[in-house]
Amino acid sequence: MGTAHASDPGEAGDTRRAIVRAARKHFTQGAFAEVGLRDIAQDAGVSAALIVKYFGSKENLFAEAISFETEATALLDCDLDHLGEHLVRTLLDLHDRASSDPFLRAVMAAFRPNGTHFSATFQEHFTEPLAARLTGPDIPLRTAMICAQLVGLGAVRVAVKLPGVTDLSPEKTVATFAPPLQNLITPHRESRSQT
Amino acid sequence: MGTAHASDPGEAGDTRRAIVRAARKHFTQGAFAEVGLRDIAQDAGVSAALIVKYFGSKENLFAEAISFETEATALLDCDLDHLGEHLVRTLLDLHDRASSDPFLRAVMAAFRPNGTHFSATFQEHFTEPLAARLTGPDIPLRTAMICAQLVGLGAVRVAVKLPGVTDLSPEKTVATFAPPLQNLITPHRESRSQT
Repeated sequence: MGTAHASDPGEAGDTRRAIVRAARKHFTQGAFAEVGLRDIAQDAGVSAALIVKYFGSKENLFAEAISFETEATALLDCDLDHLGEHLVRTLLDLHDRASSDPFLRAVMAAFRPNGTHFSATFQEHFTEPLAARLTGPDIPLRTAMICAQLVGLGAVRVAVKLPGVTDLSPEKTVATFAPPLQNLITPHRESRSQT
Repeated sequence: MGTAHASDPGEAGDTRRAIVRAARKHFTQGAFAEVGLRDIAQDAGVSAALIVKYFGSKENLFAEAISFETEATALLDCDLDHLGEHLVRTLLDLHDRASSDPFLRAVMAAFRPNGTHFSATFQEHFTEPLAARLTGPDIPLRTAMICAQLVGLGAVRVAVKLPGVTDLSPEKTVATFAPPLQNLITPHRESRSQT
């Protein structure tokens, strides 16, 4: 009771994931105060009481919905030599299967009154683990530019929806966005192969 | 009376600009329903009554605050050969002098219930005029990638505030972000100079 986690297999885990997914959608579209548990419950096909049972409060649900720990782990789960492609593929999967973009959520959350906290969480789960694995010069800058490219991809693909990108197949999107990312991840390997 | 425009010189124009600037700040941080004219008025150093006199309603003020026509015109006001650098310089100026980022506003606005309308406005004032000036292959894709890079720069610089970019001087920021943009704007010229 009240102990199901998003990583749980089975029905309780499914329900929990459906609630978090619905909550993300509503928290992205409206301000915290405007979002009702009832709206989220309806979207997830459960009762508001069940949400309270699983999460305790709207505050807790919000914290889990905007958290990107699980997604950040999935995004970084690849060796450095193929990480550029893996980042793009994983992000496209999140867009298309889960209607989720952790980078855009981080940007939206940053403008909330407690935005500094969310920015710190984003750095803890994504930019710091990524930076720790990079080698070579300008690691903080390269890390920031990798984030910038991933935010940008989500922004034009699922936010403002520019046809130049939304018209691309997933394969072509990967082929377009992965190489510049890979060049920021392992620039020394590219320059070695050029000499 | 009530006819001052942001492009007006003199005191009425200054007041109007101060109101729009304060409104942008509040509309970025909170949902429309949560933002009070009184908060905006206090921030702009005017009375709520003066805002109503100038703009008529909170709806009209919101429409003007999220509009990016003036900023889009400034961003594109440069010949193609130097547009990469001009775009970055103009965006940094907007960040640092006006606490404004039209690209991030477009992304935030896209998730509102009437987001399609804002996306269309963004395309009308920025991506379509830009695309109309580009030559060579893949114009819609290059246009979208230019937007993606500009969204990304603002996201890491003024939203999540990653030190790798916030620690850079404006000159170094331009030197880092302008060349990849210019390569998307005039790719044929670069390849010509390489042959």
